[in-house]
Amino acid sequence: MERLEITASEYQSRVKTLQGRVEAAGFAGMVVFGPVRVSYLCGFFFAKTERPVALVVPVNGKPGMLIPQLETDHLRTQCPHIETVQTYPEYPGGGSGRHPMLYLADLLMELGLKNKRLVADHDGYENRWGYRGPKLSQVLGQAVSEHLELIDDARMVKSPAEIALIEEACRWGDRAHRILQDKIGVGASELMVSQGSSLEATREMLAALGSRYVPKSREGLPANAMFIRGANTANPHGLHQGGGVQPGDVLVTGAYALMGGYESELERTLLVGEPSEDFVKYFNAMLAAQDVAFAALRPGRTCAEVEQEVSSFIRGELGLGELMRHHTGHGFGLEGHEHPFLDLDDPTLIQPGMIFSAEPGLYVPDFAGFRHSDTLLVTETGCRVLSQYPRDLASLVITA
Amino acid sequence: MERLEITASEYQSRVKTLQGRVEAAGFAGMVVFGPVRVSYLCGFFFAKTERPVALVVPVNGKPGMLIPQLETDHLRTQCPHIETVQTYPEYPGGGSGRHPMLYLADLLMELGLKNKRLVADHDGYENRWGYRGPKLSQVLGQAVSEHLELIDDARMVKSPAEIALIEEACRWGDRAHRILQDKIGVGASELMVSQGSSLEATREMLAALGSRYVPKSREGLPANAMFIRGANTANPHGLHQGGGVQPGDVLVTGAYALMGGYESELERTLLVGEPSEDFVKYFNAMLAAQDVAFAALRPGRTCAEVEQEVSSFIRGELGLGELMRHHTGHGFGLEGHEHPFLDLDDPTLIQPGMIFSAEPGLYVPDFAGFRHSDTLLVTETGCRVLSQYPRDLASLVITA
Repeated sequence: MERLEITASEYQSRVKTLQGRVEAAGFAGMVVFGPVRVSYLCGFFFAKTERPVALVVPVNGKPGMLIPQLETDHLRTQCPHIETVQTYPEYPGGGSGRHPMLYLADLLMELGLKNKRLVADHDGYENRWGYRGPKLSQVLGQAVSEHLELIDDARMVKSPAEIALIEEACRWGDRAHRILQDKIGVGASELMVSQGSSLEATREMLAALGSRYVPKSREGLPANAMFIRGANTANPHGLHQGGGVQPGDVLVTGAYALMGGYESELERTLLVGEPSEDFVKYFNAMLAAQDVAFAALRPGRTCAEVEQEVSSFIRGELGLGELMRHHTGHGFGLEGHEHPFLDLDDPTLIQPGMIFSAEPGLYVPDFAGFRHSDTLLVTETGCRVLSQYPRDLASLVITA
Repeated sequence: MERLEITASEYQSRVKTLQGRVEAAGFAGMVVFGPVRVSYLCGFFFAKTERPVALVVPVNGKPGMLIPQLETDHLRTQCPHIETVQTYPEYPGGGSGRHPMLYLADLLMELGLKNKRLVADHDGYENRWGYRGPKLSQVLGQAVSEHLELIDDARMVKSPAEIALIEEACRWGDRAHRILQDKIGVGASELMVSQGSSLEATREMLAALGSRYVPKSREGLPANAMFIRGANTANPHGLHQGGGVQPGDVLVTGAYALMGGYESELERTLLVGEPSEDFVKYFNAMLAAQDVAFAALRPGRTCAEVEQEVSSFIRGELGLGELMRHHTGHGFGLEGHEHPFLDLDDPTLIQPGMIFSAEPGLYVPDFAGFRHSDTLLVTETGCRVLSQYPRDLASLVITA
């Protein structure tokens, strides 16, 4: 890849795929409000605010876009292939006396979709920040069906270009994690060492990739690593705490990079000091459960079957069912968690090209959490682990 | 304030206020799905994922909460006053065969709200990450009205504790900006200098506040400053670019801190090198427009009237109407933009205790953007500028 981003022609083929799905579902067009879905379909990455953005995809013809006037230059630069653009002056009206949804109705009229059967991912712009507004169906005076799966089911299976971006993201997630682990020692502050490592990893990544790297967000750092420590790790979503790393602390980390808008995932359980018998027992149990997940993930099975195998192993062979707090993993790509989920209640069929995290966790109250997470690509015959960071105990012990 | 956060008793009084509003609107209870609204009402700050969280507020009696099982410890720690807690095993079901919305129906039953008149901020959990699910009204088989303003209108006017937190946030936003400005020189990278400054400001803030500072998020840094440069500033929401600062560059900055969940806002237009005649002209025009906004903001007027005064000044006295790209400002607090907006189409009456940004901007295509933004508190007679960073040209020129 010359530039580390999805090409215009791939975006256009995504729209074509959607048009086929929308037509097959019996609709004349789809209105897309979810900002990530808009990015997925046309490559427009923008500040997600109370100002509505919507992509309109007619079954026949080219898509059109609703944007606030202040995004005009952005859209032109990022998506020159979008020809029909309806701007509104400002939210809630900027003196026009008209809510942005009325401008969307104009766009639907222009695209020949007024009074046609319409589907949307959500019946109106989502309630982001200070946004308030009517449903699209209220504005149009007609029914609007909600079927976000018309887009999100297509997002489940990644294209070769998406996989290449996620692989590149994994490389820099690994690197950020290495920098983090090397910086952690007794006394290290969670927040400061995490952010310092992220900064260093980002500097290195930007220097190495040069103009191949294309930023898609103005928030945060594109190479990132963090950790939480101590008994706080027994919470799957623990917050940072004050104080520094202590000898004997268990740490649970998280690292990722962003590449062309796509994420990677990598998490490790680290120990500061000498492993206790209890630590070794739970660490090895967690590692074995993750091995089961790696072996279980392959095409032709359902998500539920993978989870069944992992959770049976934890409950049965390990006898540690009471330490589980969540299912084995989730899809991801443009968002940190995407449909489907490795969960007993998710019947989705696993297909080559899907990306999953595999992160069965064990949480021992008042002691620590034990969780590795890796980025897995489903192949024709099984899966391939894209994150390459060491998983074994010896590699993850920090000298106290 | 001992600890820089809202007290449990203030959270309880917010719920009481909401109960009164819900009852007056003719409902027996409200279901709250928006994560920020949940935080606002009960002080539960949590990772916003595909796993639904909902707060249920009956008009009579104590509120109850729906959470995924993995948030149990968090909720108990952060909100010991919430007694009725309905957990679900996992999203989408964790082997229960039941979607989380069915557990919510159980909770509504337990709170005596089944088949009563219900209102919600949104008819179901919002489509966050990979979430898919039915509307609440579908699950209950009864109508659910959507009235987010029952909560958000109350959020407009800040309490003394909220104002104190925002003032403290302003102090650290100012400090982060000072560190940023001092670090910027020719060659400086937008991303690296921004993040390095944020890291340094955060380190200083955490050291100064010690245990008074209470983290509410695991994302990003609580003291933050960034900038974009050059012609890119002519885009109100410009993205970071590669390359370093050049002599003659106009910079537009943004700095804030997070205090007990509350944000501040501070933005400045900087120049690297000698001001040109054009630069001085647009800078002074922008400064004058912001002065008009400061003078215009006072109780008893509407948001539209403030915007009318500022935009008339820019169009009339300045003759620069064609350089406007957005309205003058917005409310904020727990979120970066909150209702209401200083916009010609926002008739909201301005009241003491409201917080606004004041940031009329001028955007000169292919040259630069000119925008200062400050945090303003509406007082009994006018407004007070809480951000204290210098606004004058001499203070904002960086030697090339």
